[in-house]
Amino acid sequence: MNGVRANGVREGSKGLALIAGKERGGSAVGMFTANKIKAAPVLLTARLLEKGGGRVSAIIANSGCANCFTGAEGKRKAERMAELVASSLGVPEEEVAVASTGPIGKQLDIGLIERQLGEVAEGLTSEARGSTAAAKAIMTTDTFHKEQAVSIETDAGGRVAVGGIAKGSGMIFPHLQLSGGGRGATMLAFIYTDADLSEEVLGRSLEDAVENSFNMVVVDGDMSTNDMVLLVSTGSGEAGEAEKISEAEFRAGLDFVCKELAKQIARDGEGATKFVEVRVRGASSVEDAREVAKAVVRSPLVKSAIFGGRRPDLVRGRVAAAVGSCAVAGEFGEEELSVTLKSEGREIFIEVDLGAGAGAGARAGEGKRERKGEGEATAWGCDLSYDYVRINAG
Amino acid sequence: MNGVRANGVREGSKGLALIAGKERGGSAVGMFTANKIKAAPVLLTARLLEKGGGRVSAIIANSGCANCFTGAEGKRKAERMAELVASSLGVPEEEVAVASTGPIGKQLDIGLIERQLGEVAEGLTSEARGSTAAAKAIMTTDTFHKEQAVSIETDAGGRVAVGGIAKGSGMIFPHLQLSGGGRGATMLAFIYTDADLSEEVLGRSLEDAVENSFNMVVVDGDMSTNDMVLLVSTGSGEAGEAEKISEAEFRAGLDFVCKELAKQIARDGEGATKFVEVRVRGASSVEDAREVAKAVVRSPLVKSAIFGGRRPDLVRGRVAAAVGSCAVAGEFGEEELSVTLKSEGREIFIEVDLGAGAGAGARAGEGKRERKGEGEATAWGCDLSYDYVRINAG
Repeated sequence: MNGVRANGVREGSKGLALIAGKERGGSAVGMFTANKIKAAPVLLTARLLEKGGGRVSAIIANSGCANCFTGAEGKRKAERMAELVASSLGVPEEEVAVASTGPIGKQLDIGLIERQLGEVAEGLTSEARGSTAAAKAIMTTDTFHKEQAVSIETDAGGRVAVGGIAKGSGMIFPHLQLSGGGRGATMLAFIYTDADLSEEVLGRSLEDAVENSFNMVVVDGDMSTNDMVLLVSTGSGEAGEAEKISEAEFRAGLDFVCKELAKQIARDGEGATKFVEVRVRGASSVEDAREVAKAVVRSPLVKSAIFGGRRPDLVRGRVAAAVGSCAVAGEFGEEELSVTLKSEGREIFIEVDLGAGAGAGARAGEGKRERKGEGEATAWGCDLSYDYVRINAG
Repeated sequence: MNGVRANGVREGSKGLALIAGKERGGSAVGMFTANKIKAAPVLLTARLLEKGGGRVSAIIANSGCANCFTGAEGKRKAERMAELVASSLGVPEEEVAVASTGPIGKQLDIGLIERQLGEVAEGLTSEARGSTAAAKAIMTTDTFHKEQAVSIETDAGGRVAVGGIAKGSGMIFPHLQLSGGGRGATMLAFIYTDADLSEEVLGRSLEDAVENSFNMVVVDGDMSTNDMVLLVSTGSGEAGEAEKISEAEFRAGLDFVCKELAKQIARDGEGATKFVEVRVRGASSVEDAREVAKAVVRSPLVKSAIFGGRRPDLVRGRVAAAVGSCAVAGEFGEEELSVTLKSEGREIFIEVDLGAGAGAGARAGEGKRERKGEGEATAWGCDLSYDYVRINAG
């Protein structure tokens, strides 16, 4: 992408990715894990996006160590990562975002990062191979690297790019919230656009996009201490074109990139042999629909049944139990609930209709009709296989 | 136990248990799954304990079919089970409690139950072998049957018995609530006492006992549609002794029986190779402590790490992440959080101290001290093994 250079290297389980604007920092917003235990890099990056004027000149991200539950030493090392990038690239330290992923409770090998950084910085490139190298460097138990880009032809006749890289694949149950705002997995996603947009537009666009994408992926239901999504707008598109994009046009592109990256994370959940999409409709609100969709895709019984290729009628019962376990508005029973399963190769589609329209919410004259039945949501996940246990027992 | 006869039979995966008072029905209370999708026997038994005057003459329970998500046919078959017992034992139909456990979405083989009932009723006995046969009959994926009894010597010089049977072992995440009240697994527990106690005392004693026992067991985090705990007081202890027990004495006995049965369910969770106990202290409330304890014992990452015998320092990080994912009162960071792991053979003890006393709650003069740090709770569970996946993939 114009105005963005990237690169990455790896030594065994320890990778290092670097992304940098060509010249100056871009307007940036971030969303971070809602986990109360936050890794040192999460605290650092959330802080810089608050007081740093919302500008990011570079992102450094390591795999192989979460730098979480590492005390004061961990905090110093996260700061050291930013310092190293600042001096290497000649950018302000307070414009360097830091992210980490890997096991919690281990101290970071800062010496290794310093050695890797030299090689990574030297090879920074705006060619596609740079982004791919960065996406590969942040992989942990991921089996493939995750990239997505889109080119938006604007009504005003311009062309704007939105592209990002991401990683999963365990401890995936993100509850990402805006920095300075208030609401986990280790999932990381770094998204750049060459459009020139205000922090305000970037923030509300990212929040909405994340609610319907990364925050709807569940691999295991374990919320990470390290989840982070960063969106940087470089404004370095072709002259005059970067300003021509409408918010709606940008949002459509961002939504697409976030959803595709989210689905890649779901498809590559630890040990996954099948991709699962759960669509819920007929809920009284979007929030209720989201809760139900995530409960189904989180259920170990539903997930292991899908792994085993269990008879659809028996999987349906497990889905029904997961739906019923949700503390959503209104009452419903098996009469109102419709559960449909379809499989297409290694992709499983589960449709849940809470039938709110036909149930309690449809009885007129009861004052406020709480259950309008218009709430819809989609969640993504994967099956639960022997390999999930093997990967995490090790 | 005096005044209680039991028996059970099994044909492959399909078992039938029957428990009956010797002569007349006893005062009874029940707690049922909070799942919005409730099995036909749950609806039937909850209803009889409301309008039936809270008396239970007999309990019939089948394994091999949950009779849930089975429509009108399922409801008729649950009623038929009660009718069959009523005519076989000569007790009022509205005093027969019905429970089921097994796969959801399959129709009940009522013909088989009718055939099994003749044999079961004929062999009813108040000897220990009757209770054991009943406990074996309700097993599904359980690997051992679960029984616990205690004999309470009262201050007044009497002797009162409290004893029960239970089963687990998958779909274990109970949120049991009092009938007519309001809050999942298929876990079943049937507890009898020969004390003579009012429904009111039975109800509040059971609610408190269950909150600290069955409701603190998590195998997989899937809330069942069929969970049920019944407590029946027969008042048929030795003449004059049954009345002499104080509520406190009875509660101590009931708490012991419920906790021991709950721990047996945790120890026998599907595929379990290790028993896990999580003790939380320093929370701002008991409710917060319960949420944290259950989040830790539910975490697939913590469970699979324990299965694999992962290094304690790395398990600690996963525990910390699970603790931090809880939406509990107040803020805390890794500085306030202490996590200790101990293992004794196949038993793992995890101690979590939220350190609320040293954290936000300890700052005096901030008005209401929300986080007093006095909240404590204990939850029980097991590890996540290959066998859990195998059992539920089949």
